[in-house]
Amino acid sequence: MANQQPHPLAMTIGDPGGIGPELALKAWLAQTTEHTATSKQGSTMLPFCLIGPSRILRQYAELLDLPVPIVSIDDAARAADVFARALPVYEIADNNAPVIPGVASAATAPMVINSIETAVNLTRQGITSAVVTNPIQKSALYQAGFSHPGHTEFLAELAGPGTVPVMMLANSKLRVVPMTIHIALSQVPHDLTPDLIVTLSKITAAALTRDFGLPHPRLAIAGLNPHAGEDGAMGTEEQTIIAPAIARLRAEGYDVTGPLPADTMFHEEARSTYDVALCPYHDQALIPVKTLDFHGGVNVTLGLPFIRTSPDHGTALNIAGQGVARIDSLLAALNMAGQMAFNRLSPETPSHE
Amino acid sequence: MANQQPHPLAMTIGDPGGIGPELALKAWLAQTTEHTATSKQGSTMLPFCLIGPSRILRQYAELLDLPVPIVSIDDAARAADVFARALPVYEIADNNAPVIPGVASAATAPMVINSIETAVNLTRQGITSAVVTNPIQKSALYQAGFSHPGHTEFLAELAGPGTVPVMMLANSKLRVVPMTIHIALSQVPHDLTPDLIVTLSKITAAALTRDFGLPHPRLAIAGLNPHAGEDGAMGTEEQTIIAPAIARLRAEGYDVTGPLPADTMFHEEARSTYDVALCPYHDQALIPVKTLDFHGGVNVTLGLPFIRTSPDHGTALNIAGQGVARIDSLLAALNMAGQMAFNRLSPETPSHE
Repeated sequence: MANQQPHPLAMTIGDPGGIGPELALKAWLAQTTEHTATSKQGSTMLPFCLIGPSRILRQYAELLDLPVPIVSIDDAARAADVFARALPVYEIADNNAPVIPGVASAATAPMVINSIETAVNLTRQGITSAVVTNPIQKSALYQAGFSHPGHTEFLAELAGPGTVPVMMLANSKLRVVPMTIHIALSQVPHDLTPDLIVTLSKITAAALTRDFGLPHPRLAIAGLNPHAGEDGAMGTEEQTIIAPAIARLRAEGYDVTGPLPADTMFHEEARSTYDVALCPYHDQALIPVKTLDFHGGVNVTLGLPFIRTSPDHGTALNIAGQGVARIDSLLAALNMAGQMAFNRLSPETPSHE
Repeated sequence: MANQQPHPLAMTIGDPGGIGPELALKAWLAQTTEHTATSKQGSTMLPFCLIGPSRILRQYAELLDLPVPIVSIDDAARAADVFARALPVYEIADNNAPVIPGVASAATAPMVINSIETAVNLTRQGITSAVVTNPIQKSALYQAGFSHPGHTEFLAELAGPGTVPVMMLANSKLRVVPMTIHIALSQVPHDLTPDLIVTLSKITAAALTRDFGLPHPRLAIAGLNPHAGEDGAMGTEEQTIIAPAIARLRAEGYDVTGPLPADTMFHEEARSTYDVALCPYHDQALIPVKTLDFHGGVNVTLGLPFIRTSPDHGTALNIAGQGVARIDSLLAALNMAGQMAFNRLSPETPSHE
């Protein structure tokens, strides 16, 4: 069981006017020249299959003079056989809309959405073992009728009713979960509730156990206010919202500390005391993770019935087609998806911490 | 002029039940064994004079078996002559209240306050060149009638009416100014005003020029909301409060960027684009600075008519008298006060960046 290899990963193309296709090509080069397809030096690189029209990959390979052989496959499971010699591309419907580097077009939006849906379907069918998504440009998708606030919410809808997607940002130094995300700061004290904290904590703990090889995950929950409110001297949400949630979680056996003063919980010694930090709001979570490692962060969606990771950056239209995009984050996303796939396959295998 | 040596620094004793006396002894040992009294290896260590009863220093030297000769002086200017062979202590009134390591007592509060007042007076008279404060325990001072919210506000009152003290946290990697400090997060959007931002920015810029050798300081101002509001999609304070303040500052010739998304402004490349980050609230400023260097941070008060630095930690009553307190932050505070004193003395001298 422990020696079994997970199925390949399904990588979406993302917006073809952005840096996604370039990153896919460079990731294949990096994996095939610097890594074997299995675990090496702490990394867990599985073969991946790009879901999208191969003509777009060829366009970028030619434009950027990247020596990447491309092979179309109609069975994603074959990706592993092909990967060592060529980038396997699982073809999807294509209206042949022109792709202009740096321009996000509504004309390619149906293909972009189809790539995501196909990756999810292949993974849910067990043909691929995880979804790794390249960045999309929401404005272009909205023009074509896309109605979800973002990538993650779309994936949650594909997953089915009742799905609560949880965004976790992770790099080699820190994992964080922002408990509220893209809302005004003034709205945070209103949206933060004990139920929200309990729900997100449980989903996070379950995912750390299932996908990250941590049988007893240690959760640290940040306070909302400076110094975690200092006993109510600067805000009471720690007492009225966060502490009650922590008490409920502890009563159910979860290993939770907090509410912790956020400014003193992210230095190296403090980080060693927990496996994930849950933070009341966006910047509290994202400042430390991006300060510690800006280029190597991975966006992982917990709570889905399939594994999904993503690089922690956008389409970067301003540098698309120039060959300068950094692959650190996509490689980290591939590596993390691979680790998670191994952990799901072989729970007894030690995780690559 | 550039070869002139600033006067010694005045160090307060802080709460004698805390780690202040131990740190003072260890700082003298570190400076006299590892440094000369002038600039060396990028550090600017000036001799310092401890302001407080020598009997308390002797008590801790004996308790912790620290080989620190102590010499009482009644002229603080003599500290430089003494420093190489002994810790100079400028005696102040002492009621001989017992000092118990780990216990903050109201009985020593008058002496603690006197130490601060004396350090300020000596510095304002030009006998010492800066005030370096050891941590105080506010609860013990309150019992003795102290009525200020904290150290900084007390120093501002000693400085005289109209003084606006500005807290800057700094280490070797980052300088930050929280524009609101010890208030509930929900209060931040109410307290943040264009006038506040303009006032704090000007005081900060003036101090960076006068005390940090930066003739044209570059200020970066963080947004309040995630992604700096993303054009109003997640909060409007960037448009209504921060951008107007930045426009006013630019109109007066200040080099200001922002409002910047806070999560992407603290990694190494981003930090190289500015000299100080001004942040709407406490954790936004303190998370990155403490994540990057937890032990070496210095609390500097800008806007006072004298130089004041402080270690970025509290009295640590829980470890007082055990000999385990780390001197990183106090040494950094001494070094920074020395740099600032050199810069005030000799504006043409390049600062030690």
